[in-house]
Amino acid sequence: MSKKDPNMVRQDDVHHTIDTRRAAMLEDLIAFLRIPSISSLPAHQPDIKAAADFVATQLRQAGMHNVRLITDYGNPLVVGEWIAAPGKPTILIYGHYDVQPVDPIQQWESPPFEPTIRDEKIYARGATDDKGQLLAMIQGVRLCMEARDALPVNVRFLIEGEEEFGGAAIEAYVRAHAADIACDAVLIADTHMLGRGLPSLVYGVRGILYTEIMARGAAHDLHSGTYGGVAPNPLHALGLIIAGLKSADGTINIPGLQALAQPVTAAERGWWARFPGSDAERLEHEMGVTIFPGEQAYSTTERMTARATLEVHGIVGGFQDEGAKTVIPAEARAKVSLRLVPDQTPENVLPLLRHRVAELTPPGVQVEVKLIHGGRGMVEDIHDPYINAARASLAEEYNHEVYFMREGGSIPIAVLFTEYLKAPIVFAGYGLADEGLHAPNEHFNLANYYHAIHGTVRYLDHVALIEEGQR
Amino acid sequence: MSKKDPNMVRQDDVHHTIDTRRAAMLEDLIAFLRIPSISSLPAHQPDIKAAADFVATQLRQAGMHNVRLITDYGNPLVVGEWIAAPGKPTILIYGHYDVQPVDPIQQWESPPFEPTIRDEKIYARGATDDKGQLLAMIQGVRLCMEARDALPVNVRFLIEGEEEFGGAAIEAYVRAHAADIACDAVLIADTHMLGRGLPSLVYGVRGILYTEIMARGAAHDLHSGTYGGVAPNPLHALGLIIAGLKSADGTINIPGLQALAQPVTAAERGWWARFPGSDAERLEHEMGVTIFPGEQAYSTTERMTARATLEVHGIVGGFQDEGAKTVIPAEARAKVSLRLVPDQTPENVLPLLRHRVAELTPPGVQVEVKLIHGGRGMVEDIHDPYINAARASLAEEYNHEVYFMREGGSIPIAVLFTEYLKAPIVFAGYGLADEGLHAPNEHFNLANYYHAIHGTVRYLDHVALIEEGQR
Repeated sequence: MSKKDPNMVRQDDVHHTIDTRRAAMLEDLIAFLRIPSISSLPAHQPDIKAAADFVATQLRQAGMHNVRLITDYGNPLVVGEWIAAPGKPTILIYGHYDVQPVDPIQQWESPPFEPTIRDEKIYARGATDDKGQLLAMIQGVRLCMEARDALPVNVRFLIEGEEEFGGAAIEAYVRAHAADIACDAVLIADTHMLGRGLPSLVYGVRGILYTEIMARGAAHDLHSGTYGGVAPNPLHALGLIIAGLKSADGTINIPGLQALAQPVTAAERGWWARFPGSDAERLEHEMGVTIFPGEQAYSTTERMTARATLEVHGIVGGFQDEGAKTVIPAEARAKVSLRLVPDQTPENVLPLLRHRVAELTPPGVQVEVKLIHGGRGMVEDIHDPYINAARASLAEEYNHEVYFMREGGSIPIAVLFTEYLKAPIVFAGYGLADEGLHAPNEHFNLANYYHAIHGTVRYLDHVALIEEGQR
Repeated sequence: MSKKDPNMVRQDDVHHTIDTRRAAMLEDLIAFLRIPSISSLPAHQPDIKAAADFVATQLRQAGMHNVRLITDYGNPLVVGEWIAAPGKPTILIYGHYDVQPVDPIQQWESPPFEPTIRDEKIYARGATDDKGQLLAMIQGVRLCMEARDALPVNVRFLIEGEEEFGGAAIEAYVRAHAADIACDAVLIADTHMLGRGLPSLVYGVRGILYTEIMARGAAHDLHSGTYGGVAPNPLHALGLIIAGLKSADGTINIPGLQALAQPVTAAERGWWARFPGSDAERLEHEMGVTIFPGEQAYSTTERMTARATLEVHGIVGGFQDEGAKTVIPAEARAKVSLRLVPDQTPENVLPLLRHRVAELTPPGVQVEVKLIHGGRGMVEDIHDPYINAARASLAEEYNHEVYFMREGGSIPIAVLFTEYLKAPIVFAGYGLADEGLHAPNEHFNLANYYHAIHGTVRYLDHVALIEEGQR
């Protein structure tokens, strides 16, 4: 292997340096995790600022230029860049420094903001989501810069502090400043791998359409003894609507919905079939049940990630206490959402849903389907050169084939980037599903922290090899 | 007309006396209504005692013997009797001295326990339900006794103080002491007339089966992004169950339920068809809507009083606040009741309901139908001589034909009396439906207070004419 071979990544001593610097890199992670930067609790605003400052310092140490906090849109966005590789691609690296609240606190085995290492895992709120993964990317860039005084490609960082609280600031910023963050691809380390030692890339996310179905009957609550038999009952109406929207067998009965979905390809089903382990075993462990309802004609993987789903999240109406009250409520509401797959969008599905709900509404009840929020899903072409570079770097780092998977949830920021930056998104996650994100005893496997640092360097090196004609 | 004619009621001066004593009888009513005897609020226990004492005093003034408070079962039961008409029937007179709470207090035009007369109506909590009607019966007995030094028949009073709070005390008492209150008929003035000047008798009440349907899915709440497509959703299950139990057209889909119902007779439909005024107009006014869902093949009167109905009273489960949370709840509950018509009973309907709910339960969800409470309905033969006597006395008092109607609600005490005393129940109500019972500005038309006093005397006189062979 020669450094001159344009098809080979550089094999200098940066990876060796990373291995010798573990103690310092761990110290940085501990310092970062000590900051209780909970974005949803106003009392933690000083911690949000402290975490943003910490990230800015890290970026400066990594050799980034123009490092600054953008505070015009909400919690500080931290930006920095190194645009000194003319003719080379530009990678936008995204992450978030804010964390979830810690309730229920009594279930933590060690305090959430006193990082503790047990069994080669670091326990702290934010360890896997997303401080550990974010810091690893910064460390990768820093070590690369220190070893070479340069990076193989151009890099921009855009780090937010509201990911766990709606992400309004970054959304406003991207809408207003897309040109300032132009890039060839976006690198995100905020997802998880299929399992320990199994490198994975997420190439699709589902969208969401979240609504509230509001049903109204009589002008006021009525007594069922007096009016039962002639009164509209909004709770009964919601029952009819919910049952009409989705059958017991999991079929969603919204005419036109399925026709909007891009077909899943045989290739995708092939990748999923190769996933190690059994979904059923894992789901039984995670859900505590042995029956997995839904469309039995599709695999559990496909149902969880590549089919539209419809769920009722809450119903409010009528008598809520213990015992009995014979009220026929005047109104009731249900929170109902659909997970969407491309090319289903909130915009094209909402009218279908409204039409179907109107069809299902019984006489005497007025129903309104109120949009709470919506976000599009996406499916990427895994043959895109920037995704292919990620596959190569992860395969190299883990010495294992890379799995391609879709994510069942929604990642609004990724869809925003796609729309405004017209760039592919590389979801190269280093977390594990059982690391307790959003739960007590969140942790991050230290092995994956170091893998992520190496992996970031490898990714930049592989991107540098992408030929101009391919970009 | 001669006093000796056994088929004619006595036409002495008692009715004239009643007319001259209005001021004193109104004063008694005001004193009774001043007592805030709210049974559901423990702070009002002294008022419960005061109201019981008031009733006892009234019974003594009416010449009753053995007047006493029975306190062994809960709020005092007040009893008293006059068993001095050998060979004559015995009438048990029932009423209740407790009242509903007064919330929302700010909607009262005059304080609920400062009785106020406006436009020939007396406004106070308990005016129509049931202090006014109860006191009228006592006054009728008292005036009769004062005018004649005797009553035409034997009379027992059994007055309770927990009617608005479950009625446990009287139930326990009747179960234990049915023999002590043996009677030929029970007179209850706690229902309402079809309209002003339209005397009415209730000859049927619906029963009730009140349940809670508890649905359980996974071991804990799940995220719809991750598990949507494979997770059991108890709220969706409740939707399927509720929709399966009752169609949009009001049909109850519980196999076997309808077959248990005694058919409504052509005679009954004939009585109902003669009801003055329009149900639709009244319901539109009361409910604030113009569409009356339910089984359109049956009249609104029949649907409200003589058909089984099924209603959802409340659903609890999942996310209840503003905004969005993508939770799939681990459990959810619905309060569902059926109003029953004879010979449907809680005992024979509950297994049918459970069987149907099990049929409707989707895979992966565990459902339990928990009995909250149940009570039987009843339908009486209006040709019973004791009911016929009531018809005659009311027709005489109002100079108007008497309407026979069924009550859509449940009156557990009546069913209890039927079961333990084997006696017909005479529901001779003097209230009006718009008198705000259980609501702010409850009132009682004073004209009906005096009618009820006269009517009670007339009833006792008519009962005295029932020949032994008919009893």
